[in-house]
Amino acid sequence: MPVNLKPIDNAQLAPIAGIDLAYAEAGIKKPGRKDVLVIRIDKGNTVAGVFTQNRFCAAPVQICKQNLDAGVQIRALVVNTGNANAGTGESGRQHAREVCAALAKELDCLPEQILPFSTGVILEPLPVDKIITALPTRQPATWADAAEAIMTTDVAPKATSRTIQIDGQAVNITGIAKGAGMIHPNMATMLGFIATDAPITRPVLTQLVKEVADLSFNSITIDGDTSTNDSFMLISTGQSAAPRIDSVNHPAYEQLKAALLEVSIELAQAIVRDGEGATKFITVQVEGGRTVAECKAVGYAIGRSPLVKTAFFASDPNLGRLLAAIGYAGIHDLDVDRLEMYLDDVLVAKDGGRNPLYKEEDGQRVMKQDEITVRVVLNRGLSNATVWTCDFSYDYVKINADYRS
Amino acid sequence: MPVNLKPIDNAQLAPIAGIDLAYAEAGIKKPGRKDVLVIRIDKGNTVAGVFTQNRFCAAPVQICKQNLDAGVQIRALVVNTGNANAGTGESGRQHAREVCAALAKELDCLPEQILPFSTGVILEPLPVDKIITALPTRQPATWADAAEAIMTTDVAPKATSRTIQIDGQAVNITGIAKGAGMIHPNMATMLGFIATDAPITRPVLTQLVKEVADLSFNSITIDGDTSTNDSFMLISTGQSAAPRIDSVNHPAYEQLKAALLEVSIELAQAIVRDGEGATKFITVQVEGGRTVAECKAVGYAIGRSPLVKTAFFASDPNLGRLLAAIGYAGIHDLDVDRLEMYLDDVLVAKDGGRNPLYKEEDGQRVMKQDEITVRVVLNRGLSNATVWTCDFSYDYVKINADYRS
Repeated sequence: MPVNLKPIDNAQLAPIAGIDLAYAEAGIKKPGRKDVLVIRIDKGNTVAGVFTQNRFCAAPVQICKQNLDAGVQIRALVVNTGNANAGTGESGRQHAREVCAALAKELDCLPEQILPFSTGVILEPLPVDKIITALPTRQPATWADAAEAIMTTDVAPKATSRTIQIDGQAVNITGIAKGAGMIHPNMATMLGFIATDAPITRPVLTQLVKEVADLSFNSITIDGDTSTNDSFMLISTGQSAAPRIDSVNHPAYEQLKAALLEVSIELAQAIVRDGEGATKFITVQVEGGRTVAECKAVGYAIGRSPLVKTAFFASDPNLGRLLAAIGYAGIHDLDVDRLEMYLDDVLVAKDGGRNPLYKEEDGQRVMKQDEITVRVVLNRGLSNATVWTCDFSYDYVKINADYRS
Repeated sequence: MPVNLKPIDNAQLAPIAGIDLAYAEAGIKKPGRKDVLVIRIDKGNTVAGVFTQNRFCAAPVQICKQNLDAGVQIRALVVNTGNANAGTGESGRQHAREVCAALAKELDCLPEQILPFSTGVILEPLPVDKIITALPTRQPATWADAAEAIMTTDVAPKATSRTIQIDGQAVNITGIAKGAGMIHPNMATMLGFIATDAPITRPVLTQLVKEVADLSFNSITIDGDTSTNDSFMLISTGQSAAPRIDSVNHPAYEQLKAALLEVSIELAQAIVRDGEGATKFITVQVEGGRTVAECKAVGYAIGRSPLVKTAFFASDPNLGRLLAAIGYAGIHDLDVDRLEMYLDDVLVAKDGGRNPLYKEEDGQRVMKQDEITVRVVLNRGLSNATVWTCDFSYDYVKINADYRS
């Protein structure tokens, strides 16, 4: 079960003026399941996104990038689960275009004004007819429905909202996301959609989506696998009365970014809390590095090590495995005699070895918790980074050995 | 159980003239277990090694490097299991030196003429007194005993031999190794010792150990974790009547290297076959890359992906996970439309997607085997590399969650 993941409550999710949601049950993988989501956006919006770095990026990712680059007004996003439309070559791109065309016809716009997204099994042809047949049958949806409609192996839907005031005007932000395996930096089998009614110009939105992704969705790992389909989209409908944010120097930029970060970090952490088979939520804080990149490298070495993750699963303070992971993180001139490692408030390692005052029972106490912070102080610079991850359990193997059956 | 790992038979293991083996039961982790091995070498030998790249490299690794650099004649290697003496700082180095000094006193040589090795749990003080007390109690050992004495979580001992003729003179090669988790390129929690009676100069031996390691022990992965203690040593006693190999251009160099490679690849593969929880042995052959490094990167992306490894465990031809791994292997200009992927003889993917002639039952047939070759043809250059790995099972989690208890 997810680790301390609050159930979502639709009453807590702010509607975003200028967006209609609808879902359909296309029976892509099995019948009677919300597996298609349409996010329709009024004219006057701006949309920006970041996508997987995987060279086998899925057909819908390729089409999304093309359509965003075309500079046309986006009118809708269409998401299907149950099939990733990845590793499907030219016919996959054709299928994605057909889905866009079908929705475009109905919305009386160009296919290029639709952004397609897919998540699910790789290397199988998209059942495009099922999706096109189901599109006209779609039902109005709440944000809670939308969060449910994009789930694959997720145990629970993920959604959250914030409302802030900019110049005395309410600005709403609501986001949804899905995980739950193949999660690693530079995106994952993860989809994230955050919409706000704040008016934001496209260049500012493009900058915001990168900055926000780096500190949230690009700071989590479940299993080190970077997926073919990861996409994180920011949508601005512009229908709030707040002033338009047209520059990163705008007085409200930092305030808006902070609120977007709260939403995206909560969603990214929710993905980890619902990581496949997760029983613990681990925060890895790396401090005092020369660069953010080297701090992240240490965070990820710890966060993706199967040996570290199985030790967390067992509540076993087998902390040498953490040191080993730090040692192979790729900092070639790391002086291990200078670093400190803490488990919550317990100083475990210093001077290149175990803290003489460290007691096994202190480590044991922290390891038994279901939320644990590993803090590594490199003592060689002023940069920091935080990575979130989960443990590695029997259920991870079970879920991934059974996924297609 | 190990995957198709032949039991070792001491009668098949050639003694190496100039080497005496002995084991002791020091009770480091539990009583009644061979946990200390001494490899004593006659004068006139040469010794060379390669070691872990992990920055938290263990105290014995540091001492080994110092002693090899000192240029003195090596007289013995001493190995303990049950404790890695890693993450132990200055006191760890002191402990390793004390073990060397105790054995040196007995052998009437300098402590610098002893090479120490440790494997086992990290971050706990080496029980140096137990080892020193046990050293004089040691019993003469066969190579089979020696293979057993260096085991940790290994299910079975690993040893093999070859005898070749150089200029009509017999040359014997015998090696032992241990795994079995924390195995990743640039060494692992792995120890490998190969001895030969062929006379080889130190510079040639130093070159040989690197070339041989790259194509064997540095081409395997169990879990992507690079250990603190990995060491692979080549020992030449020089007691064969074969001519001394004093240059890489010596007529017998390639012949000797081929034989050493056979031994080291068999040992490296044995480590994978006995990988923690392994039920399948996977060969990943990557061809047609621009460089060996990029071929290895693809091989390792596949070989360490938990999603790929759990699919192998389940015998599930969920082959999209393999493509995803190829896609995130870090070849930024990889043209996925040009590559081909085979499972044994079955062409699974080409033209950026699934081979239209591919049938699920063909994939299924291969996935059910316990030995599988994944062949990736990148079609962008002339370089190749092979990586060996295993699947990821419930037992991997069980073994690593229970390791210390």
